[in-house]
Amino acid sequence: MRDSVVYFDNINTTFPHPDVVSIVETALKSAMGNPSSHIHSYGIAASRIIDESRERVASFVNSRQDEIIFTSGATESNNIAIAGFLNANPKIHLAVSCIEHFSILNQAKKFGRLGRKVSFIDVDNFGRLDLSHLERVLELGPTLVSVAYANPEIGTVQDVESIGRCVHRYGAIFHCDATAAASTQSLDVEKLNIDLLTLSGHNMYGVPGTGALYINAGTKMAPLFDGGNQEFGIRPGTENIMGIAAIGKACEIVKANRIGWNEKLRKLGRQLRDEFAQNVPFIHFTGHPEQRLPGHISFWIEHIEGESLLLLLNMNNVMAASGSACSSNLKGVDEHDLVASHVLSAVGVPSDICAGSLTFSLGWYSSLDEVTRVSNLLPQIVQKLLAMSPSYSDYMKSKEALRGK
Amino acid sequence: MRDSVVYFDNINTTFPHPDVVSIVETALKSAMGNPSSHIHSYGIAASRIIDESRERVASFVNSRQDEIIFTSGATESNNIAIAGFLNANPKIHLAVSCIEHFSILNQAKKFGRLGRKVSFIDVDNFGRLDLSHLERVLELGPTLVSVAYANPEIGTVQDVESIGRCVHRYGAIFHCDATAAASTQSLDVEKLNIDLLTLSGHNMYGVPGTGALYINAGTKMAPLFDGGNQEFGIRPGTENIMGIAAIGKACEIVKANRIGWNEKLRKLGRQLRDEFAQNVPFIHFTGHPEQRLPGHISFWIEHIEGESLLLLLNMNNVMAASGSACSSNLKGVDEHDLVASHVLSAVGVPSDICAGSLTFSLGWYSSLDEVTRVSNLLPQIVQKLLAMSPSYSDYMKSKEALRGK
Repeated sequence: MRDSVVYFDNINTTFPHPDVVSIVETALKSAMGNPSSHIHSYGIAASRIIDESRERVASFVNSRQDEIIFTSGATESNNIAIAGFLNANPKIHLAVSCIEHFSILNQAKKFGRLGRKVSFIDVDNFGRLDLSHLERVLELGPTLVSVAYANPEIGTVQDVESIGRCVHRYGAIFHCDATAAASTQSLDVEKLNIDLLTLSGHNMYGVPGTGALYINAGTKMAPLFDGGNQEFGIRPGTENIMGIAAIGKACEIVKANRIGWNEKLRKLGRQLRDEFAQNVPFIHFTGHPEQRLPGHISFWIEHIEGESLLLLLNMNNVMAASGSACSSNLKGVDEHDLVASHVLSAVGVPSDICAGSLTFSLGWYSSLDEVTRVSNLLPQIVQKLLAMSPSYSDYMKSKEALRGK
Repeated sequence: MRDSVVYFDNINTTFPHPDVVSIVETALKSAMGNPSSHIHSYGIAASRIIDESRERVASFVNSRQDEIIFTSGATESNNIAIAGFLNANPKIHLAVSCIEHFSILNQAKKFGRLGRKVSFIDVDNFGRLDLSHLERVLELGPTLVSVAYANPEIGTVQDVESIGRCVHRYGAIFHCDATAAASTQSLDVEKLNIDLLTLSGHNMYGVPGTGALYINAGTKMAPLFDGGNQEFGIRPGTENIMGIAAIGKACEIVKANRIGWNEKLRKLGRQLRDEFAQNVPFIHFTGHPEQRLPGHISFWIEHIEGESLLLLLNMNNVMAASGSACSSNLKGVDEHDLVASHVLSAVGVPSDICAGSLTFSLGWYSSLDEVTRVSNLLPQIVQKLLAMSPSYSDYMKSKEALRGK
């Protein structure tokens, strides 16, 4: 009998919640016009779906409705947040953490090349932002600070409230990419002093191809596209009605279920981690041990290539991730980053003995049975790979030689 | 009994074809990973859907698969085509027709302000591009020419083959926005000498929120977003799997049905036009009488406001359009364009006696019954509005005064 699939790659994409599937299906089958066709009922119907979704997202992040715009995903939201803000505010510096997503890091490098003052803020070995480094940068002048709420590769959750307070103390602007955090963390933009917040539908039980961006009222932004006046002129183009319905519904669902889901995720995640710690030799966990995403376990194993491990897991119908999916098909200029992930380097993982990290990320639909199965499977696969590992064989030989002395 | 709805606004958005609905539903309900997660089966499954759709779009426009990228819609495709090309090719001029969509026109104005040489090519009173004007512009130096295949507001279809031949004779680059044309016109990029071609899913029986851009191999382009390496690095961001599946399927469906659908659309459209011509007083048709989209009728009526007419039609469950949906909610800077459409001005419609134009656009699902119903309804509504029109009352008085003399 073929085992059923265990999907532990929710950090890279989640499956749409059944209520999200329903709302998308309804939108898909309803006769609907162009939301800009205000002159007839079908256009107005489409427009209402967008308004309703905007209301749900606004309620999710505790903002006004006109502070939410819809985009095609986190990458676009992050690009509007950084480039849209910097283009509209020519003299502002940029500061980003050194473990941001490529959609942030590559913008920072680009603006640096264009002559803009750009700083990369250090993190400690748990991936937590160095607040005193941030303060030294903020002292240099007005700055847009971009720090992700949580890191998808190592699971660390930032102390966003302290970062926001610090940024606002200096009168700076705070962009927070909440892509990895939105399905589990509280996102009250007022309490957290956030000015710009990125959301991604497919990372929070919505569908791929839709994101949102919260923009604090009064923040001067330039659109990245020219066109019509959709999304308050910040994001022209006919709206992705189904995707927008999905992300609004996803916000509503997460808001209603987060506390219960987190409790379950925390428990299952802790069990998986404990089992691995006990039964997997040479394992090194990454990220912060406590201040991390619930149900997220990340690690690397000495003598073992992450990719081989993932392929063998997949052959056993268990799906997990190596670093961030977005970097897994990078070629050309950034190819080097695939080998030595910029996140692992930043948290001090030794690149000479670490051959790829792994991330197991659970979803609300994950079960204890799945955790048990993976807990049993991983040590077996690791043993198999150790038996084939040249570096492990060298290590054993040198150990025996030492013993022989 | 309440009449069923007649939807004659297919030019602004079509309804997804049943086979498109099916493919989206299947994708929505399949467990699928992030297409960049090449390390496991669910990621590969998602990736395959994108490949399959790319194959369908490529076959639709007669290109190689790696010449197709997916975007969030026509606005983004048009922005990548213009800004992505001009940013990567700093010395090239830009020439656009003066009846383009705002996503083209506003870019042209912006690049003009930035100091780039930009020309606006005239059209004749049927909306057909002035080829000799284009040639005079092409003589000035290397140019990116952007001309839409068909105009959504007045229905005129350009002689794209002649334009492409002319553009290539001067070694220039040809971008064609096929948003309004893709569901009915042949789009062989090789035959038509097109280098960049914009497609929009929701305008061709796909879903909103997805577009495609054909980019002739070897054309140097700069991405508008920074991020991962998706879509050959031209368009970073996790892919809209469902929307991409939809636009690929839509291309396949249109390719298989276009000839039959066009015959029906042409017949129904001609009948609607003939009935209007016979029974609606003071009617002035816009666009070219022959070289126009099948099933597309556009006109204005002296003494009558377009908006009032559309509202009364909607009260009778008939939905049609006033100009382009994208301009119908423009506010602020471009508000003036709402009153006097740039398209109507360009084709010489007198703004002092034209108070708004109308567009009726049929889809493959339109029926003879619907055409008959609208043919009977419009003259009644026009009579009602004439009875209330101050300008008509003035006209009648002056006519009587003349008769009295």
